[in-house]
Amino acid sequence: MIVVGERINGTGARVREAVVGRKSGFVVQQARLQAEAGANYIDVNAGTEPDREPEDMAWLVQTVQQAVDAPVCIDSSNPAALEAGLQVHRGRALLNSASAESARRDPVLALARKYDARVIALTLDDAGLPSTADQRLELALRMAEAARAAGIADDDLFIDPLVRPIGVETEQGAAFLDAVGAIRKALPSAHVICGLSNISYRMPGRRLLNRVFLAMAMARGLDAAILDPLDEGLMAVACAGETLLGRDEMCMHYIKAHRAGKLDG
Amino acid sequence: MIVVGERINGTGARVREAVVGRKSGFVVQQARLQAEAGANYIDVNAGTEPDREPEDMAWLVQTVQQAVDAPVCIDSSNPAALEAGLQVHRGRALLNSASAESARRDPVLALARKYDARVIALTLDDAGLPSTADQRLELALRMAEAARAAGIADDDLFIDPLVRPIGVETEQGAAFLDAVGAIRKALPSAHVICGLSNISYRMPGRRLLNRVFLAMAMARGLDAAILDPLDEGLMAVACAGETLLGRDEMCMHYIKAHRAGKLDG
Repeated sequence: MIVVGERINGTGARVREAVVGRKSGFVVQQARLQAEAGANYIDVNAGTEPDREPEDMAWLVQTVQQAVDAPVCIDSSNPAALEAGLQVHRGRALLNSASAESARRDPVLALARKYDARVIALTLDDAGLPSTADQRLELALRMAEAARAAGIADDDLFIDPLVRPIGVETEQGAAFLDAVGAIRKALPSAHVICGLSNISYRMPGRRLLNRVFLAMAMARGLDAAILDPLDEGLMAVACAGETLLGRDEMCMHYIKAHRAGKLDG
Repeated sequence: MIVVGERINGTGARVREAVVGRKSGFVVQQARLQAEAGANYIDVNAGTEPDREPEDMAWLVQTVQQAVDAPVCIDSSNPAALEAGLQVHRGRALLNSASAESARRDPVLALARKYDARVIALTLDDAGLPSTADQRLELALRMAEAARAAGIADDDLFIDPLVRPIGVETEQGAAFLDAVGAIRKALPSAHVICGLSNISYRMPGRRLLNRVFLAMAMARGLDAAILDPLDEGLMAVACAGETLLGRDEMCMHYIKAHRAGKLDG
């Protein structure tokens, strides 16, 4: 499981305040906590106005990379902010995100190619959010074709079939899971990722819904997720899920995590 | 989710003692606790020697049915014990189990037909336990064909693709999940069931493995399970799973369970 830690997101007040005030201590702390908890990428989203976002993004990327070895998931819908982050990033970043929207397809894929970054591609086009599994699959195939044309290998492509809140439309959980299965089958070398907590938006008992949905999506082929790695119960589900899918030789990772008390959350 | 409560099983010392000593109090208590926790069927397995098992089974079925409204899952590999239970059962029992073994296929299917019972069919034949998903699917199709020939509708057939311990063979979790998906697709009107806790046999952290595996199997099409309904965390996963699969109108069942404090286990 490729875990993208979601906690440095400027759409929240505390992170925004840290970004605007250049308070590196808070950002460093959140980066370290997430890396120690097992995050493979640290997502950073400045959440600031377009005119200052590129500068804020560059500061965020540098601040995180001074603190941890994990690469950064550079998160913005604004190609200028993505590029500002890429210019200062060491190693291979993950871009969050391209989509099939005209403003976000070719420009973001070109950035990924130019800076040798990996890229998340949302199944979304100018017509808006998809409802069905078939629509998501069709958009995923279009994005994979565009990525290949831009010189990006399937293994560097993370398809995000877009989780929609179960509390708003009860059929969207099954539609998402069916899409994950179909994309996994059609694009076996690509990754399938999601922003997990959207599923439980505005519902009570959110943590349980997130945990069960992560297990369900893993069973259908999800191999990456944007989530809070400090949710120990959620990370325990990811660990158990890998073991149950046969990706843990002799179950040793699970047994060690159990001995270390990491599965009690 | 169709829940079969597994706690009245004479292979354990306390239940065996209750069966042999005709201690109805313990059996009644276990039946009530499981029904109150949401079990749709109460499994009873006498666990005694073949010569006395039919009489013990009849006593168990009557004792349970005096205590709760839920029908009984009559659990034995011995057709004589199954029939003794069926003779005293009120309503439609579930037989546990038929298989593709010569001694357990036609005799058990004939009992199901004669007593209008539903029936669990293990994907197992005289050659032994299947390893791959394909073998499980082939056995499931053979059992469905035999059941139809015996006059049993697919909706009364519960295919059990046989969970094997992840701690013994790490690839068996994925093989089981693939089998569930293939059987669900090939036999859309049949049920798919399993004895859940086999997955975690001899592993540490069993409860977490059982919970995550239940969610994973539900995502592939499992709609029934033999489990301990007094494991509140496991029942919470089943509840969340139904909601996430779109089987909970307006999410009201989940929201009510949350309010009642039933999702905290």
